[in-house]
Amino acid sequence: MANKRSFTPKWYEGDTPSGTYRALFRWHDLNVFKHPNRGFYTLLRDTFELTDTDFNHPKLDLEVFDFDIPSGLNSSQIQELEGIVGKDNLKTDTYSRTRASYGAGMIDMLRLRERIVENICDAVTAPKNREVLIQLVKYCCAKKIPLTVYGGGSTVTRGMETPKGGLCIDMSVHMRRVIRFNETDQTITVEPGMFGPELEDYLNHAPEKLGAHGRYTCGHFPQSFEHSSVGGWVVTRGAGQNSTYYGKIEDLVLSQEYITPQGALRTPAYPRCATGPDYNQIMIGSEGTFGVLSEVTLKVFKYMPKNTRRFSYLFKTWEEAYTAYREVMQGEFGYPSVFRLSDPEETDTAMRIYHIHGTPADSLLRSLGYKPMQRCILLGSADGDSAYTRMVKRKTTRICRKHGAVVLSPFGVTGMWERSRFTDPYMREDLMDFGILIDTLECAVTWDMFPKVHAEVRKVVKSQPKTICMTHISHAYPQGANLYFIFVIKYQSIDDYLDLQYSILDAVQASGAAMSHHHGIGKQTAPWLEGQIGKSCMDILRALKAHFDPQNLMNPGGTLGLDLSKEQQSKRWGFRK
Amino acid sequence: MANKRSFTPKWYEGDTPSGTYRALFRWHDLNVFKHPNRGFYTLLRDTFELTDTDFNHPKLDLEVFDFDIPSGLNSSQIQELEGIVGKDNLKTDTYSRTRASYGAGMIDMLRLRERIVENICDAVTAPKNREVLIQLVKYCCAKKIPLTVYGGGSTVTRGMETPKGGLCIDMSVHMRRVIRFNETDQTITVEPGMFGPELEDYLNHAPEKLGAHGRYTCGHFPQSFEHSSVGGWVVTRGAGQNSTYYGKIEDLVLSQEYITPQGALRTPAYPRCATGPDYNQIMIGSEGTFGVLSEVTLKVFKYMPKNTRRFSYLFKTWEEAYTAYREVMQGEFGYPSVFRLSDPEETDTAMRIYHIHGTPADSLLRSLGYKPMQRCILLGSADGDSAYTRMVKRKTTRICRKHGAVVLSPFGVTGMWERSRFTDPYMREDLMDFGILIDTLECAVTWDMFPKVHAEVRKVVKSQPKTICMTHISHAYPQGANLYFIFVIKYQSIDDYLDLQYSILDAVQASGAAMSHHHGIGKQTAPWLEGQIGKSCMDILRALKAHFDPQNLMNPGGTLGLDLSKEQQSKRWGFRK
Repeated sequence: MANKRSFTPKWYEGDTPSGTYRALFRWHDLNVFKHPNRGFYTLLRDTFELTDTDFNHPKLDLEVFDFDIPSGLNSSQIQELEGIVGKDNLKTDTYSRTRASYGAGMIDMLRLRERIVENICDAVTAPKNREVLIQLVKYCCAKKIPLTVYGGGSTVTRGMETPKGGLCIDMSVHMRRVIRFNETDQTITVEPGMFGPELEDYLNHAPEKLGAHGRYTCGHFPQSFEHSSVGGWVVTRGAGQNSTYYGKIEDLVLSQEYITPQGALRTPAYPRCATGPDYNQIMIGSEGTFGVLSEVTLKVFKYMPKNTRRFSYLFKTWEEAYTAYREVMQGEFGYPSVFRLSDPEETDTAMRIYHIHGTPADSLLRSLGYKPMQRCILLGSADGDSAYTRMVKRKTTRICRKHGAVVLSPFGVTGMWERSRFTDPYMREDLMDFGILIDTLECAVTWDMFPKVHAEVRKVVKSQPKTICMTHISHAYPQGANLYFIFVIKYQSIDDYLDLQYSILDAVQASGAAMSHHHGIGKQTAPWLEGQIGKSCMDILRALKAHFDPQNLMNPGGTLGLDLSKEQQSKRWGFRK
Repeated sequence: MANKRSFTPKWYEGDTPSGTYRALFRWHDLNVFKHPNRGFYTLLRDTFELTDTDFNHPKLDLEVFDFDIPSGLNSSQIQELEGIVGKDNLKTDTYSRTRASYGAGMIDMLRLRERIVENICDAVTAPKNREVLIQLVKYCCAKKIPLTVYGGGSTVTRGMETPKGGLCIDMSVHMRRVIRFNETDQTITVEPGMFGPELEDYLNHAPEKLGAHGRYTCGHFPQSFEHSSVGGWVVTRGAGQNSTYYGKIEDLVLSQEYITPQGALRTPAYPRCATGPDYNQIMIGSEGTFGVLSEVTLKVFKYMPKNTRRFSYLFKTWEEAYTAYREVMQGEFGYPSVFRLSDPEETDTAMRIYHIHGTPADSLLRSLGYKPMQRCILLGSADGDSAYTRMVKRKTTRICRKHGAVVLSPFGVTGMWERSRFTDPYMREDLMDFGILIDTLECAVTWDMFPKVHAEVRKVVKSQPKTICMTHISHAYPQGANLYFIFVIKYQSIDDYLDLQYSILDAVQASGAAMSHHHGIGKQTAPWLEGQIGKSCMDILRALKAHFDPQNLMNPGGTLGLDLSKEQQSKRWGFRK
């Protein structure tokens, strides 16, 4: 027993040389590691009926990537492109092209682990500035070359995949500069290739770096924060983990510029106006199908980390928990910033990860009626002015207590969650090294449909034997929220994985939820889009597409369901036999 | 002197029989009167260098409306329409057609006072329900009959005017029912012909009228509240006076249904999602040019009038006042609900109307440095949870004091404003009865451009001799606000009035503001729209129009600048010689 307890699986911490399969599919920083802790490991081992010895031989995929797929561009096109961007800024090797076409979705990792390379672009280019970008769009339109955009590569919806090949524009190399900062308006204008940490660094250090009087934050912290770009946030309608206070990206954008086949488009830059439709909200979420985002003006907030107040609660039941959660969101005293409610199964996992499971405190909680597979953790924090955060915490606590919750804050649960908020995905590779697959799907609901969607989707996932299905709400509004499903299964084959994924998407749709709250649609969820938004909204999308991109060159091949192939319409994709 | 003081102008309080010109142009309820009080009257008399005797002979326009303009529909069309809607629900008399085509704008009143009747529809119909509405849209498309919609008739932008004639659908007769109420989601679904008071009555009395547990409010109180429709709010992107807390109508809509020439369109009904562009925000603000709104689902709030906290302050200077105002909006402790800052000239007028002008208190204020034509009133209130409103008021007061303000609340200024918030427009007729014209124009700004827009527009108005120009901010955001101009001039002719209006619109545009914050564009401001949003946004609007309404039958004739005539492009309209 003592021996068993001290066993540690062979989690890989060695080098991941560039040029290998592992380097391609690994989550972001090749030198950062986060391994499952003992509680999580034990859960996995027991769930999948494995033994410690099953964790001795990881499949690391450290082999050198050896595909050599000829580019679809001819040599005169490559020369002409080099003439536009400079020789250093054009790459046609298969590794670079795969990197620019595969995202961070499970399907991308699985394909690389199974040595499936498909739907990659023909070249990757990094324009130096807006003028070069305009030339590139013009050139691609003239030569009928499809065009995709790469920012941070963190899509989990096959957003950049190129079934029709073409040129991929990498915005992250040069186009990541601050264009303007306006302290009176509290806005910053940046090029879309800027990553989250750089943006926050500018804003947090605005006096030193931008000549400002105060310090600011953008308030947008998606899990991919460290390696996703501002442009990616905008074109996919992303959300940060603090969106309940700061808003989703569509709430944070004041204006944008796109380079489209019809020319440059600049949206009006007012917080609200009454001048026809909202042109900003037409362009946000267009996922590269209308044109290339070239500039974004974001609203910013005062940087006041000292005011942040954290809280966490444990409820006896899921129903009490989500009722309290909704009551907070409809309480009209402001909103928490992070506000994250775990369902019973996610709570049990969290209790293990946060080292509460099996402690004397756990025994006490159980004796008080907070029982495993019934109890639910709610954690969060409040941001803003000091009096405001104090009040939001006080009111939230009062509502939670009324619904039978006990305050968990002394355990530091929220702090533990915060410390791992950006690094948890690093565990994905660890698990998959031993054939355990962890993946996520998310959707948007109104409160009334929320219990049904949760139950129906869970039913589908749990119909598979030996499955972990953890669910949380993490982005909320007075009228509804997101629902985020994390499922862990023993990997068998891509086909089996897709069968499960497709059946979850079917269940999301059948139970009335929106197909995405913040991941976007990409090519993965595209076959389900029309089923949700209806033909009349799809027709609006098609009309806008026909207007901007009559030649269908902007991120074509099924994105947003605009030009689904027959195969895609049947919800089955090319790599399936 | 005593004699002079007791003089009261001959403000009309007699009957306004239906069928008269006055009944057509009078603000809403023919039995409600609000006259300028002594302070305002004295200001007007002195500004325009009039004497009391000039206020003895009002021009009342109580003559019977005697136009008889043949309908452009032929008898078989009229028969067919009667077949669809029932004989009782179709009117072709000129009075009804004028009422359905003229709004509540100054230009509408002036034309009726000058006996100019033009651009009226050919018939007015009141569909009984959604099915009849669908038939009407189909019929008009088949017969190429232009179609406009009448709700409350409160447009001030010539929204319903029909330069191309056609059929006007009056939604206010039958289509004003509650369709659904969802207490869990806090939403209400209504037909678009419902007026503000009825909506509030349902929500405030939700336990009695909707079988709910709690009481609710929509939080949307435009000045036209008592006689404007939910549908009008939505299609024009309107705002209520409490929008700084509750949001503009585009923030309050969860979903909509439109009957368009392409069929019925239902928008997704989630508080947020990531499924392409925001289809709700494409339809809101379409001003009847894409189709007819048939159903709206609105977010609602808890009705907690006891929690409302009122406040008012007096600043020494405009700059200190708007700096404090912005600081409140960027303070991150929530937002006031009503939040209304008057510039020096509006403040002086308010001091007279609120009976502070000339009192010992006024002398004291002056001696403390709060001087006429420099000082500025800020009034407002906070709505929401009790602890929240207490905190918002406390923080707002602290910021205002820091910027040199004195607290005015003991004078009950906010209460006085509230009591007259919906009735002030009734004074318009009183003034015009004696040839004094009062009108408004509004725009949207970011904070950085705000002082310039205010100064430039004022300069244009004040370049006219003997002019009152009052300005306030009343709808605010962290990044900017609206700017609302009220100007009072001695009326000379429609041409002179339009010259001034056009020069104000030119100044709004030249100084960088958006052409409307919440009145919409209609046909009045349409010639300026492309100049503000740019050709590329106009092209989006045109593409959407071509998609929904390829025959150009939905509110045609210049609305939103979609089909401006040559005359309109020159910014000059038909009734000008």
